[in-house]
Amino acid sequence: MRMPWTCPNGYSDSRTLQPVVRNLNMFEAAPDWTVREWLNTDRPLSLQDFQGKVIVIEAFQMLCPGCVSHGLPLAQKIRDTFGADQVAVIGIHTVFEHHDVQGGKPALEAFLHEYRYRFPVGIDLRNEGERIPATMGHYEMQGTPTFVLIDKKGRRRRQYFGMVSELVIGSEIGQLIAEPL
Amino acid sequence: MRMPWTCPNGYSDSRTLQPVVRNLNMFEAAPDWTVREWLNTDRPLSLQDFQGKVIVIEAFQMLCPGCVSHGLPLAQKIRDTFGADQVAVIGIHTVFEHHDVQGGKPALEAFLHEYRYRFPVGIDLRNEGERIPATMGHYEMQGTPTFVLIDKKGRRRRQYFGMVSELVIGSEIGQLIAEPL
Amino acid sequence: MRMPWTCPNGYSDSRTLQPVVRNLNMFEAAPDWTVREWLNTDRPLSLQDFQGKVIVIEAFQMLCPGCVSHGLPLAQKIRDTFGADQVAVIGIHTVFEHHDVQGGKPALEAFLHEYRYRFPVGIDLRNEGERIPATMGHYEMQGTPTFVLIDKKGRRRRQYFGMVSELVIGSEIGQLIAEPL
Amino acid sequence: MRMPWTCPNGYSDSRTLQPVVRNLNMFEAAPDWTVREWLNTDRPLSLQDFQGKVIVIEAFQMLCPGCVSHGLPLAQKIRDTFGADQVAVIGIHTVFEHHDVQGGKPALEAFLHEYRYRFPVGIDLRNEGERIPATMGHYEMQGTPTFVLIDKKGRRRRQYFGMVSELVIGSEIGQLIAEPL
Repeated sequence: MRMPWTCPNGYSDSRTLQPVVRNLNMFEAAPDWTVREWLNTDRPLSLQDFQGKVIVIEAFQMLCPGCVSHGLPLAQKIRDTFGADQVAVIGIHTVFEHHDVQGGKPALEAFLHEYRYRFPVGIDLRNEGERIPATMGHYEMQGTPTFVLIDKKGRRRRQYFGMVSELVIGSEIGQLIAEPL
Repeated sequence: MRMPWTCPNGYSDSRTLQPVVRNLNMFEAAPDWTVREWLNTDRPLSLQDFQGKVIVIEAFQMLCPGCVSHGLPLAQKIRDTFGADQVAVIGIHTVFEHHDVQGGKPALEAFLHEYRYRFPVGIDLRNEGERIPATMGHYEMQGTPTFVLIDKKGRRRRQYFGMVSELVIGSEIGQLIAEPL
Repeated sequence: MRMPWTCPNGYSDSRTLQPVVRNLNMFEAAPDWTVREWLNTDRPLSLQDFQGKVIVIEAFQMLCPGCVSHGLPLAQKIRDTFGADQVAVIGIHTVFEHHDVQGGKPALEAFLHEYRYRFPVGIDLRNEGERIPATMGHYEMQGTPTFVLIDKKGRRRRQYFGMVSELVIGSEIGQLIAEPL
Repeated sequence: MRMPWTCPNGYSDSRTLQPVVRNLNMFEAAPDWTVREWLNTDRPLSLQDFQGKVIVIEAFQMLCPGCVSHGLPLAQKIRDTFGADQVAVIGIHTVFEHHDVQGGKPALEAFLHEYRYRFPVGIDLRNEGERIPATMGHYEMQGTPTFVLIDKKGRRRRQYFGMVSELVIGSEIGQLIAEPL
């Protein structure tokens, strides 16, 4: 049974909301993302481009308060803290609600510009007639913000929906960094 | 000479940025707003509707980080703190940049819904060929977020561009409340 | 019946704890404080010294987490925000627990020095055999931190035990400032 | 040459202050602490008691604002985040200033009680005539708060003086956890 697709709303929630954690089968290769268009990069990116590095995916929506106040600032902080040779940070714009008003590339471009986010962001591909975009579906994400940690071998190791503490995600990134290639 | 129209960006700025304060002529009647469409109210509103009350205007843009992290939450806090019989809170969506991607009513509706803002919000009217919308122009606002305090007699008494401390704006609202009608 | 003498503990509490508010009889003159020793002032102070000004008393203990994280920083912010000709800020060290380890003047001096608090602080006088010091008793404070607002005529107008929002206390100070002498 | 013994003061500093980081020789065994008295434990503790675990030492003083607002809450958060079978958290009260007013066990006991810190805390031994207590000296700490990370084999691996980000210390703890015994 699926959990409801809800967006953890707003700042006040973010103090109390416990993340929904998924401990994944360590041997499962992460599905590649299915991206319609990219921003903050001059060419399309795939999981293979980051082999040997830890990958942090932050799935977000522009109109999701929990993403704006928590998920995206944390993604940027991860980008600023770890060397690009060790950790890759990728944003995926996974619009699953208010499709008509937050889907476009120019709006997302203005958003990333104003908030000064510099990591690559892909717009999740939504197939005609579908509510949930493709990457969001393949990863079985339950809403936004969602963080996914992928290890150096391309295996999905952890997935958080909601707010996650810096100490926790920092420790998990550290453990994945320490693993042998 | 006009100051540049800039949007104080993001949360980190908000800690250090001093607001630009305007002490206004106490006898100047506030210009009425010029609103294209309203949200969170079932009828158009005018300054006259609030005579006898203190009015707090929060001018904002959806894509302005300083509005999202500071201005709008403070406006809501003012709404929650003071009785509606004493203080009116009005948002004005004064889009002066990225016009193509943040101007529409449905997008603003989704934004207010997701962030759970319940006070009335008017979309500032922008005349053809103009960059700055009308209310923003009449009030000579320098950017967003801007707070305007209007007294019980409809006179504009204070205007802040940027971050303003709760203690300061709280005190000024208190002083205006204490004034005789 | 008296409420229990408890100290709102710690930072996490401070987010949720509602203050206990007392609306006082507007015609009651504030009791003067009963202070054993003063710091941050070269002479003893009394209520009469501040006639014509709004007085903010912050009652605290060095070993009270809610005072250290909330009450004292707010008192300093009030001191920094309002002119000394309009608002006086007075700290009172009202020790009612752990008497043996937090009562001394040298310890309080080191504390105020390290935290850089510059407003006058009086050590509440505790009579032999009493648990509650004198000023705390006269004001019927229920614990720390407690804020007391006294108007320009020396009348106690409001008393908060616990956390109080900046918007609320700012507004009340503003209203007292606006009152005619 | 020694750096000055200063205590990073207060909350405002904590936002900007960069920690002084020491990358230590990985093969250097950590010096054991030299503790006069223990709190929050029924028996004296030594490094050997935690062999096979990552050890986090938080050196603090009760009257150090940076310790109260940053170091100690972070130590407790580390305690709450990681299993006791993986990570040990030890506080050391390293008084190097205001000796007369913050050294005693009863005061520290009241402090730990009020702030609800439950991890073991040792009072650093100060030899007669010395200003700097023994553990602080052996570790060449430059002030408080100082975090020390010790690996499973008892080697001191990292030392921070000042504010350290949760993401950074989380990652380093994670890397030490991932190392083979």
